[in-house]
Amino acid sequence: MTNPTSIDPATMTRDRVEAAAATLGRRVRVTPVITVDGSTFGVDATVTMKLEFLQHSGTFKARGALHFLLVNDISAAGVTAASGGNHGVAVAWAAAQLGLPVTIFVPTISAPAKVARLRALGAEVVQVGRVYAEALEACRDHEATTGATAIHAYDAADVVAGAGTTGREFETQVAAAGLPALDAVLVACGGGGLAGGLAGWLGARTEIVACETAGTAAWAAARAAGRPVDVEVTGVAADALGATRLGRLAFATLQSVGATSAVVDDGATVAARRFLWDDFRLAVEASAAVPVAALRTGAWRPEAGAHIGVIICGANTSPGDLERPPTESSTDQEGDR
Amino acid sequence: MTNPTSIDPATMTRDRVEAAAATLGRRVRVTPVITVDGSTFGVDATVTMKLEFLQHSGTFKARGALHFLLVNDISAAGVTAASGGNHGVAVAWAAAQLGLPVTIFVPTISAPAKVARLRALGAEVVQVGRVYAEALEACRDHEATTGATAIHAYDAADVVAGAGTTGREFETQVAAAGLPALDAVLVACGGGGLAGGLAGWLGARTEIVACETAGTAAWAAARAAGRPVDVEVTGVAADALGATRLGRLAFATLQSVGATSAVVDDGATVAARRFLWDDFRLAVEASAAVPVAALRTGAWRPEAGAHIGVIICGANTSPGDLERPPTESSTDQEGDR
Repeated sequence: MTNPTSIDPATMTRDRVEAAAATLGRRVRVTPVITVDGSTFGVDATVTMKLEFLQHSGTFKARGALHFLLVNDISAAGVTAASGGNHGVAVAWAAAQLGLPVTIFVPTISAPAKVARLRALGAEVVQVGRVYAEALEACRDHEATTGATAIHAYDAADVVAGAGTTGREFETQVAAAGLPALDAVLVACGGGGLAGGLAGWLGARTEIVACETAGTAAWAAARAAGRPVDVEVTGVAADALGATRLGRLAFATLQSVGATSAVVDDGATVAARRFLWDDFRLAVEASAAVPVAALRTGAWRPEAGAHIGVIICGANTSPGDLERPPTESSTDQEGDR
Repeated sequence: MTNPTSIDPATMTRDRVEAAAATLGRRVRVTPVITVDGSTFGVDATVTMKLEFLQHSGTFKARGALHFLLVNDISAAGVTAASGGNHGVAVAWAAAQLGLPVTIFVPTISAPAKVARLRALGAEVVQVGRVYAEALEACRDHEATTGATAIHAYDAADVVAGAGTTGREFETQVAAAGLPALDAVLVACGGGGLAGGLAGWLGARTEIVACETAGTAAWAAARAAGRPVDVEVTGVAADALGATRLGRLAFATLQSVGATSAVVDDGATVAARRFLWDDFRLAVEASAAVPVAALRTGAWRPEAGAHIGVIICGANTSPGDLERPPTESSTDQEGDR
């Protein structure tokens, strides 16, 4: 493998995303889109959802992880990451595709289902420490001792470029369907890998609305401060969007295109997740419902008649809590608070 | 409303499906497709899944129910059906779209979640009798007494033509994506409304593989007997595919195009449903996984290099039993029996 992209750019660029798409080719799935009348979401617009949770590993993160492994020299000691969440699953999946050994560090409190999923993908799973920080420390020790290649979850150009291919694919699909270009794309934002990648591809032509919960508002805080700053992480989206600080590359890229922000509360997020099940039979994770919550609550409002993209980015969830019957007062009203 | 199509044809025709598509227009959703390498399913083929469970009401049945209501004279007493399942939900949804009163009869043992869903759609729900047959009798009494318009779940031309629009849309999407034409389409078969509609549209150009569980094999039995015959209905797909006898129109249409049959057992069906969750994060009902089971078990085998369509037709399910972690022996091997 070669290492043509090791120098991180100041901002993500269209060329980088184009190159990532060429490198990835058909190794990742072209995820489908569905266009519906926005009245379903309570807005006067056309809404096209991109069902990126159908991606390998259950989230968009497969794109960035695999792209990173394809364009970087990988240690003979293999690949490593500290994550029992979406990043860990994506790294384990990507390494398996290339036959690379992979060691994932998770805290001992990790859900058995997550550990089992990582092992099913062929990863060696090391359960160490009570909290994530301790697992991360063990991962860094492993990296230092063995020389294993670590993959950052979002603040690496090759990861962001891979994530950005989601936006390139989305734009291509919209054009192929004969639909008007997207006026805005709503996307969940944690460390900013996906939002930054989209911004790198779509530039200022399309408004990027990076959506967060109040308990994971790293982008809103960075935007207010003029630079990435630490935030406290809590709430229903913390497991997937809970980066304590926005990535530098994502921040610079989002700022450069004038990306906007939408912040919703946990209640609206849970209601939006429920709505996606009731109305579309999509069982997604809470974080993936955040952009839908932004639309339904009016945290962000489209221009009348606009064409709005919404990325449904992950479904590594336990669907059991979708069991309860819809309320008789109509499921449509559930999240309107 | 007019009643131009009240005389049932001997077989479903392309013209009827075309007319149904024009009538339905954008009142139903264009459901998305995803194309993947068939190796995921254990076959040497390209597989395109049509995610029809994203349709209004959670199944393809919304198409047929709404089409029926749009082209028939409806009694001032409204619409009625006996079904706590997919047909009942589709009829309730379709009636609500047109502002028609609707009464759904279900047995007293019906799950509260199903009753709540029907009521959320605005239906009057009458819980009567211990078993389905008693609810059906009450529905017929209601029909006779009030003159309410009853909609058959599958053996009515306007219902089958509406279901057939799924096939028309699928073919259009495949062509628009620049993919080769579908060599075969695998579809779950209960009373045969969807399979018959597909056959009416696709004709003999594409092999229609009507897939059933051993406990709901009305098409396999009809094919063997040369006419629709009664079958005993049991097992995991009984709630959605459990017609005791194939519809006459579906039978004639499927026979006329040389449709084939695939029968799988309940275990393979449960494993296929689990596989769709593990590999695609799709939480669908058991019946919708039957065609996937047919592919994964080899109950039906494609020609090498073929392009195979699979319709994932419904997701009115309780997703809670998808909670359990994947086995470490790899989810891929689960259904290979």
